[in-house]
Amino acid sequence: MTSFAIIGHLARTDGGFSLNDLPGSGGRMDVLCRCVNASLFLSHDLRRNVDCYLILCGEPAGPKTVKFSGALVRSLSPDERSAGALVKKVIDTPCGSEFREAAQGVFIRKGGLERLLGEHRFAVLDENGTDIRKAAELPDAFILSDHLNFTEAEEALLRDCPRYSAGPKCLHADHTITVLLNELDRRTASWT
Amino acid sequence: MTSFAIIGHLARTDGGFSLNDLPGSGGRMDVLCRCVNASLFLSHDLRRNVDCYLILCGEPAGPKTVKFSGALVRSLSPDERSAGALVKKVIDTPCGSEFREAAQGVFIRKGGLERLLGEHRFAVLDENGTDIRKAAELPDAFILSDHLNFTEAEEALLRDCPRYSAGPKCLHADHTITVLLNELDRRTASWT
Repeated sequence: MTSFAIIGHLARTDGGFSLNDLPGSGGRMDVLCRCVNASLFLSHDLRRNVDCYLILCGEPAGPKTVKFSGALVRSLSPDERSAGALVKKVIDTPCGSEFREAAQGVFIRKGGLERLLGEHRFAVLDENGTDIRKAAELPDAFILSDHLNFTEAEEALLRDCPRYSAGPKCLHADHTITVLLNELDRRTASWT
Repeated sequence: MTSFAIIGHLARTDGGFSLNDLPGSGGRMDVLCRCVNASLFLSHDLRRNVDCYLILCGEPAGPKTVKFSGALVRSLSPDERSAGALVKKVIDTPCGSEFREAAQGVFIRKGGLERLLGEHRFAVLDENGTDIRKAAELPDAFILSDHLNFTEAEEALLRDCPRYSAGPKCLHADHTITVLLNELDRRTASWT
């Protein structure tokens, strides 16, 4: 099982955003939707062994965490709007601090990064880490930031996490996930 | 300079599609928009040395080819809708068989795969090719299909093209582009 978590610093935490304007009204929800796509889609198949966590930190009710389960999700298409529609559907579901399934395979709870860090041993994907191709072994949980850098408070929480880099260029979060999954696919299939 | 060309078998060739329904009314225009994103975007930057050709083969006026120039394009954001809006803007521009700039850095002409094959030495990205990590050198132009396989007529045109594979899993076209660009980035930066 591989897990990705992406922090959406400005991502809207109620349904008051428009699917016609995910970047603006959604607080760059488009970034998070592309990360769901990169985490879960194969050609004509889903990655059933991947979970994708979206940590929504924006107005008016953040933080909340949405979990897309690759094993359980239904009604998800690859386009941004499809993932956005599922977030919009689940985000207003009353929830507490435990995950509640609010659409098939899509779960919601209150709380953000600190809670999630207590549950997984995350590695950080950023430009300054160990090359993923050089690592003898790779972890099974990775955390990324959206279009903004991690805040100082987040960096403090992530201080002890190992760091890995996907390559020499600074990439979007979804592209980084795609490159990392390719490396994991190769290791699993012994394509060295 | 690196070029990508993606065949959109059903992609709409006039402006009669809705930005709110790129997959349906656009004939899977969402796939092509994600390929534009994968081809051109770095974090807070564009890949100025990449061109992305969309070969639109759908109703009512196909084939047409739209070229996004990484060096010249303006007003392009990473979300699918942004690339879709540029296609919708240029697609009804009167054009002949030569590229005409119909938005900044976005060009349109009549004609499809056969014409483009006469201008670039394309390699095909599919599951059965040589592993891109194993190739001594990589070409600078790559062709991919959308969610559908190449047709028999396309396969006949592509018969003599070299073939490369991005990994052991069958990926979406945009994910394949991302993985390939990572390999090219590593070679350029001597990250071996």
